[in-house]
Amino acid sequence: MTDIAMIEAAARRLAGHARVTPLLSSPFLDQIAGRRVLVKAECLQATGSFKFRGGWSAVSVLPPQVRARGVLACSSGNHAQGVALAARLHGIPAVIVMPADAPAIKIGTTRALGAEVVLYDRATQDRDAIGAALAQARGLTLIRPYDEPQVIAGQGTAGLEIASQAAAEGVTSADVLVCCGGGGLSAGIALALDARAPGLRARPVEPQGFDDTARSLAAGEILRNPQPLGTICDAIVTPEPGRITFPILRRLCGPGLVVTDDQALDAMALAFTRLRIVLEPGGAVALAAALFLPQAVQGEAVIAVATGGNVDPALFARALARA
Amino acid sequence: MTDIAMIEAAARRLAGHARVTPLLSSPFLDQIAGRRVLVKAECLQATGSFKFRGGWSAVSVLPPQVRARGVLACSSGNHAQGVALAARLHGIPAVIVMPADAPAIKIGTTRALGAEVVLYDRATQDRDAIGAALAQARGLTLIRPYDEPQVIAGQGTAGLEIASQAAAEGVTSADVLVCCGGGGLSAGIALALDARAPGLRARPVEPQGFDDTARSLAAGEILRNPQPLGTICDAIVTPEPGRITFPILRRLCGPGLVVTDDQALDAMALAFTRLRIVLEPGGAVALAAALFLPQAVQGEAVIAVATGGNVDPALFARALARA
Repeated sequence: MTDIAMIEAAARRLAGHARVTPLLSSPFLDQIAGRRVLVKAECLQATGSFKFRGGWSAVSVLPPQVRARGVLACSSGNHAQGVALAARLHGIPAVIVMPADAPAIKIGTTRALGAEVVLYDRATQDRDAIGAALAQARGLTLIRPYDEPQVIAGQGTAGLEIASQAAAEGVTSADVLVCCGGGGLSAGIALALDARAPGLRARPVEPQGFDDTARSLAAGEILRNPQPLGTICDAIVTPEPGRITFPILRRLCGPGLVVTDDQALDAMALAFTRLRIVLEPGGAVALAAALFLPQAVQGEAVIAVATGGNVDPALFARALARA
Repeated sequence: MTDIAMIEAAARRLAGHARVTPLLSSPFLDQIAGRRVLVKAECLQATGSFKFRGGWSAVSVLPPQVRARGVLACSSGNHAQGVALAARLHGIPAVIVMPADAPAIKIGTTRALGAEVVLYDRATQDRDAIGAALAQARGLTLIRPYDEPQVIAGQGTAGLEIASQAAAEGVTSADVLVCCGGGGLSAGIALALDARAPGLRARPVEPQGFDDTARSLAAGEILRNPQPLGTICDAIVTPEPGRITFPILRRLCGPGLVVTDDQALDAMALAFTRLRIVLEPGGAVALAAALFLPQAVQGEAVIAVATGGNVDPALFARALARA
């Protein structure tokens, strides 16, 4: 299982390949939230999301002969790009199983990164079964998007950076809000903070109607979402929390937070105007919670992880219209 | 006059106040340019442009009794915000003389930063005369946008960062393209590179029809633009190169580059899609030159300074429509 030693080992493998992303702020955001807001801009990570951390961590740790046969990932887009670029930089093949309704930019970009893309129907097909069959047939190593200890370790490197960057800003006690799908990033950050910044508490944030993690944390057991589709926050929709991630979240995270799609769009607009960064809806829910749910957050400061910025221009224009 | 010692002194005053902005990249941009492209993301600087560096440098160096009376700046917007925030953080008054046709977001933001904004008509009035009269009447110190040695020193701190960040990327020989209005940033970066990274050569980039610096460099003397208005790159339109900046540019910079407004919009679209940063047109001309004028650039890599990201949503939507 992932522990701080694995996260620090992943950080050493990522050095010089993943970016140390900045912690951004604006007095205008502080004013809205009623407290200091620090934004970890993972949209500026290679491939435009934190997923490159986990992809690189998992690919780089494979034994060379195993790695040479190639890797396979199943993803709604950002994990796909993270694994595809990590594979390309290692000079190995990558096969990506993607839902046919993923944003066009994500499918196109994954192909342009050299990966073979296999599309499936999210409403009727099981991506994990498709992936497992392909992996077995071609000798590929499956890189799971979140229920994989080395992926969690890679995502946890963002938590190590948050711990040191927050300390440099004089923030030692705060909620750290994390956009949450399967829980890999939330779990990795929670583990890193528990070891390196115990005054910082990770809290998952999800879109309304897809709050499986918040409800599971409240219930103390894994609960599923009632429906598979129906939010613009597609990047962070999963059926339920991971089998590996959930016990970590349950042990280390504070209560989950839930925002609406409109709040995510408003957070995108404010990130555009005040931070000059591009966020996708699923990458903006943590910032939305920091800004629009101030009563649900504790502490004089709040840290929001802005997890990704791969968004179709037409959808971004909807956020701009609200600016 | 500004020299490397003044730039390094400014860097010490800026430490902990200005951000060290990241050097971003994307394999997709490399492909378009036909060489490695590194983007210095000054749009992520406090207030959304490099101008905070010069503003902080000039305000922080004033004797305390002089500073306490307040400062005044004349600016199309970004210098205004840089000086306004520097003044607010020093707890002193700021008066900003701005053109009435500046983007609404820049006027509103400058006021929200606590400055008193005095508007004037860019076509018929002389902002420098208005500013000088106000400064004298109220005992304010005028902070010029570029023809001011301590402002040039502040902008030059971006050049110190480029020198060390480029070296960390293994780039020791390249053109450094800089969006250029009055030439304060170009001059500061040129001085810093000359002292700390002599293999890197600063080159100003301007919008078509407002290429006073490129023509002045070619002629060896200061030439004016034929018209005062008429480009979406409003942030970098000045009548002519500065009296202090031009001799520095003439001594240290390579030939100027010129791009069209459409190329600036296309660069904004690519910065959105591939770097997930928000650029204004005037902040995108250097990236546009790096991407779309490859034959005019020398070296295996090119560094583009993305100088600002304060853009009205409607104008940004025009760039998005081209993505």
